[in-house]
Amino acid sequence: MEVIVPFSTDRPKSRLADVLSPDERRAFARAMLTDVLESIVAAGGEPRVLATDAVDVDRPVTVDDRPLTTAVNAALDGHFETAGAADGSVEPVAVVMADLALATPDAVERLFAAGRDADVAVAPGRGGGTNAFVSSHADFRVDYHGASYLDHRDIAAEVGAGFVAVDSRRLGTDVDESDDLAEVLIHGEGRAATWLREAGFVLDTSGGRVGAVRE
Amino acid sequence: MEVIVPFSTDRPKSRLADVLSPDERRAFARAMLTDVLESIVAAGGEPRVLATDAVDVDRPVTVDDRPLTTAVNAALDGHFETAGAADGSVEPVAVVMADLALATPDAVERLFAAGRDADVAVAPGRGGGTNAFVSSHADFRVDYHGASYLDHRDIAAEVGAGFVAVDSRRLGTDVDESDDLAEVLIHGEGRAATWLREAGFVLDTSGGRVGAVRE
Repeated sequence: MEVIVPFSTDRPKSRLADVLSPDERRAFARAMLTDVLESIVAAGGEPRVLATDAVDVDRPVTVDDRPLTTAVNAALDGHFETAGAADGSVEPVAVVMADLALATPDAVERLFAAGRDADVAVAPGRGGGTNAFVSSHADFRVDYHGASYLDHRDIAAEVGAGFVAVDSRRLGTDVDESDDLAEVLIHGEGRAATWLREAGFVLDTSGGRVGAVRE
Repeated sequence: MEVIVPFSTDRPKSRLADVLSPDERRAFARAMLTDVLESIVAAGGEPRVLATDAVDVDRPVTVDDRPLTTAVNAALDGHFETAGAADGSVEPVAVVMADLALATPDAVERLFAAGRDADVAVAPGRGGGTNAFVSSHADFRVDYHGASYLDHRDIAAEVGAGFVAVDSRRLGTDVDESDDLAEVLIHGEGRAATWLREAGFVLDTSGGRVGAVRE
């Protein structure tokens, strides 16, 4: 399955500015991207990075500096122009965010499986975000503003596409803020978790809420 | 499967005090409890409420006012005293928190299924909490302090119990703080979501982060 992985090279992970320098944010974002790409490949997907600028990565890269929604919809256009088979079936396409540092091959496989059962399968994130989806419906397009999970459910209904949610905490956890770093330390199994540990981050369980602190 | 549902009748959901009055917090906590019990029953489980004081609910209730860890371990003791069958197999027991307002029968079924495949199956919450688990290992006991998910994984290893994590966003979302209310409005399908809407809560997508506000 073709899997588009949007990745911002321009000020990546700016909401981590309180705990990481710009260079560190860039390195951490790259570690998460690599983890996501490897989980996709291990699940049988063929990832392609949709980046806002050139990025040195061992996978195909398409550069599109337009806003996320515009760039992803252009990629969907491109996919569905050539996705139809002679028998009328349509090859699905997935879009998986580059900051899903807890993603595992199993979680990605569950996403792919849901996308084979329904026209549109969405793994929501916290706050109604759309962290990952699979679509085999040529008319489904995205709108990432606000509680996009609800918008995407509505858009699927409008174009007559069957919709299903994917109940995954791993795919549902995008790493945006310092609170999210604890999730990577607890559940991460790849480069991002290793990067954080090598940067001196440890779990802090002293307060009422578990967090990540730098030693 | 026997399913223990711990429920605090004493100042429930105190971290929602900024948005709900004490009476409202009590009513909302009860709505969530009812949703959780119904999902458990629909998934084929037999729930029993483990409450800190008497609670009027249409299911068996055990009152134990000791701290959560002590009360749950006492319930596990009780279960495993009588859980062994003549053929040497052990009947599993589950513990599911009462504030998992996004729980659905499907999500609870996945928990039960994981608990049939491994000695101990845990659905983690945010910050390394243990939102739900199934155990069929007579020596596994809980310690809910701190990042209990990691502690429970260690405890399982210490007693020689096979361990698996359950990757569920629905079971991974416990409703503790006002930020969590948006999750209920977006994904809730039961009484708790209805209660919030009737209390005047709506989604706020005007800021950078989706929240719940009271109109």
